[in-house]
Amino acid sequence: MQHNPIIVAPATALGGAIAVLRMSGEGSVALCDRIFKGRKPLVEAKSHTIHYGTICDDERVVDDVVVAIFRAPHSYTGEESVEISIHGSRYIAQEVIRLLCEQGAQMAMAGEFSQRALAAGRIDLSQAEAVADLIASDSRAAHAVAATQMRGGYSEILEGLRDKLLNITTLLELELDFSEEDVEFADRAKLRSMLEKTDSAVVRLMESFKVGNAIREGVAVAIVGRPNVGKSTLLNRLVGDDRAMVSDIAGTTRDTIEESVVIDDIRFRFVDTAGLHDTDDRLEQMGIERTERAMRQAQIVLYMMEPSQVEFELPTLGSEQTLLLVVNKIDTSSERSVEGAIYISAREGEGIDELRNALRSTVDTEGLYRGEVVVSNMRHFEALSRAHSALTAAVSALDMGVSEELLAEDIRSAITALAEITGRITSDDILKNVFANFCIGK
Amino acid sequence: MQHNPIIVAPATALGGAIAVLRMSGEGSVALCDRIFKGRKPLVEAKSHTIHYGTICDDERVVDDVVVAIFRAPHSYTGEESVEISIHGSRYIAQEVIRLLCEQGAQMAMAGEFSQRALAAGRIDLSQAEAVADLIASDSRAAHAVAATQMRGGYSEILEGLRDKLLNITTLLELELDFSEEDVEFADRAKLRSMLEKTDSAVVRLMESFKVGNAIREGVAVAIVGRPNVGKSTLLNRLVGDDRAMVSDIAGTTRDTIEESVVIDDIRFRFVDTAGLHDTDDRLEQMGIERTERAMRQAQIVLYMMEPSQVEFELPTLGSEQTLLLVVNKIDTSSERSVEGAIYISAREGEGIDELRNALRSTVDTEGLYRGEVVVSNMRHFEALSRAHSALTAAVSALDMGVSEELLAEDIRSAITALAEITGRITSDDILKNVFANFCIGK
Repeated sequence: MQHNPIIVAPATALGGAIAVLRMSGEGSVALCDRIFKGRKPLVEAKSHTIHYGTICDDERVVDDVVVAIFRAPHSYTGEESVEISIHGSRYIAQEVIRLLCEQGAQMAMAGEFSQRALAAGRIDLSQAEAVADLIASDSRAAHAVAATQMRGGYSEILEGLRDKLLNITTLLELELDFSEEDVEFADRAKLRSMLEKTDSAVVRLMESFKVGNAIREGVAVAIVGRPNVGKSTLLNRLVGDDRAMVSDIAGTTRDTIEESVVIDDIRFRFVDTAGLHDTDDRLEQMGIERTERAMRQAQIVLYMMEPSQVEFELPTLGSEQTLLLVVNKIDTSSERSVEGAIYISAREGEGIDELRNALRSTVDTEGLYRGEVVVSNMRHFEALSRAHSALTAAVSALDMGVSEELLAEDIRSAITALAEITGRITSDDILKNVFANFCIGK
Repeated sequence: MQHNPIIVAPATALGGAIAVLRMSGEGSVALCDRIFKGRKPLVEAKSHTIHYGTICDDERVVDDVVVAIFRAPHSYTGEESVEISIHGSRYIAQEVIRLLCEQGAQMAMAGEFSQRALAAGRIDLSQAEAVADLIASDSRAAHAVAATQMRGGYSEILEGLRDKLLNITTLLELELDFSEEDVEFADRAKLRSMLEKTDSAVVRLMESFKVGNAIREGVAVAIVGRPNVGKSTLLNRLVGDDRAMVSDIAGTTRDTIEESVVIDDIRFRFVDTAGLHDTDDRLEQMGIERTERAMRQAQIVLYMMEPSQVEFELPTLGSEQTLLLVVNKIDTSSERSVEGAIYISAREGEGIDELRNALRSTVDTEGLYRGEVVVSNMRHFEALSRAHSALTAAVSALDMGVSEELLAEDIRSAITALAEITGRITSDDILKNVFANFCIGK
């Protein structure tokens, strides 16, 4: 029997007081032993025990470490695994990994530990993806979406739908076997209703993607309006209230016009489209294009104006988009004539809580927190769309009275699409794409 | 008996696949139990065992975790401790810490875990400082300096010197007790020789600071020379060869004129002083000042010129500084008239290995790798200087035949200075300064 090679990678980020290196594969404990000096050999240690000692490069002590032993199958990967807690220096991490590789380990590729957990049947593909989402989660809602998916509730629903469709195809295939006798094992009206029910379930999952995607990626809010209505002041006000959180989020830098803020439990990405009308024509044209793009991509368009602005042309929005009307500078005027608007003073902070509440209430998370499954992954949404198309085609085929063969083919397409989500049916391409987005060490 | 409060902090950096939270203090296991759901309560677990389970906020599962249990005194702090491995999300880290704090834990201050290890007598002050240096180490030499200090070799030497001095004061105090009888328990010549020997040992340690400091902080190299001799090209060449390493080092950004590169086992900090003579007078003056400062602060001054440059005025250097003469652009000329110079082509990469070797050989690490103690900490150097002054004063006092009281006082000053390094004698101020430089979680 051939074993997977032993892989090693940092499991934690480097730069803290300690760092953890993770090694997985049959023989990792014995491999670690060859550079470890402790009270007794690690190979004699039981699973789930911790051992203090030193990692040595011949005579030279590289670090004082704590080693945790996991025996197969009781580890994340299902394989024999070792976790080495070292002092959090990059140099030490490099050295220990170098020594382990000299003893036969190899550097893990991105997502390789999770890929092994998948191969060992410990998690399915959507759960592996959820692990990556969980690690990236930076708000309560994003965490809830990933956590539900990781715990397998989603996989169960998909397996349920798949089982129903498999039953139908079994019946249809039976009919094919007995085709000369022209029997119908599957009542056509019942079949139609089953297909429609399954399709409704698929559509419900697809519909949850709007919320799920917004939660996972952050709700995009385009702040638009004439120059000097206070768009940047509003952005700073919203960000400033939450500056610590913002500076915590990787990739949120001040040199773009986008700022990211968590309001209650949801992350919002604000795009400031200021300064459109202050430049000469060519730049203005480019600015307008940029604003239009930001508006198209936004879930929420926040149209901002001053109390003195009597006329305004509201932007045309898509059916999925929400418009929030905001009148700024109420510290300078008592005018309250715009119906449905939120009145604020970005400078003084008045009305900001109301605005935050209005933003927050655009995202319905009731179902999510009740434990309902919310689809947040584009790959899943696409697979669901394909399942939906196949099921719609199957219903039409049924109505048109086409042959069992063609009907069964449509249903099998739907089954395949659903099976791709959990990875029951998969290809190297899908796996490669999924795990390429993982970090090393997961 | 009053216990220390239970403290908690992330022990690893956040942003990896997993992160580790560390909790220390009597009762931490029971505290963790209140938010942990596993196969059995953690309080029943033995020391050095690992337990899989979930962290829950009432009904809501916050994360699947692995908890490691350390019973007193077998932990870093010497106290009962818990390490919780969570998925590496900031949100999850925040939530778990919030839940632990709700149960009575408090956020640890910078260095508080190490301060407890110190208070429990598990490490001395110089060892605690070495832990911080070890975490920051980014080259083999910096690692060796910190590792030797952490393992206590340094503390042993200091304790040895202190013991010798204590013996002397004991003898002198005996003489004081018998002062009416005018006896000399301590032979004056022998006393003098002992003091001088101790002082020599202190001076040797002080001398090692030059190398130790350079290794710890990086060897400062000022690249100077006329405009357009290729200083920036050389900097890029040196940095480019090692770009991965450079981008790994925190704080090494391209918007300063300083670049940091590890050559073999030593970090060098190159300061480019380009563009001094291209500006108008006032800016030029500022530029010259900046170059002069860089040259004063440098351990190595790299004076760069072109083959065609027939006259040059070498900069005046301090006795501790090294001058390297470099002639660039040898791809454009075969002139080799400057004696002792290193001939390179920064553009083509020729001669760069020779230059790197010349730079590397300015730092003598033979003693370090043989296991000799190298002082790298400014606080220690200052304490050693005070010990040296006191010992010099003691020898003079002896020569002048002053009273035992005054002599004993000088020696006691030296003892105090040495004791401050290991923290045997300490003050809140010293502790505050030392641990303020630690990261949270160490």
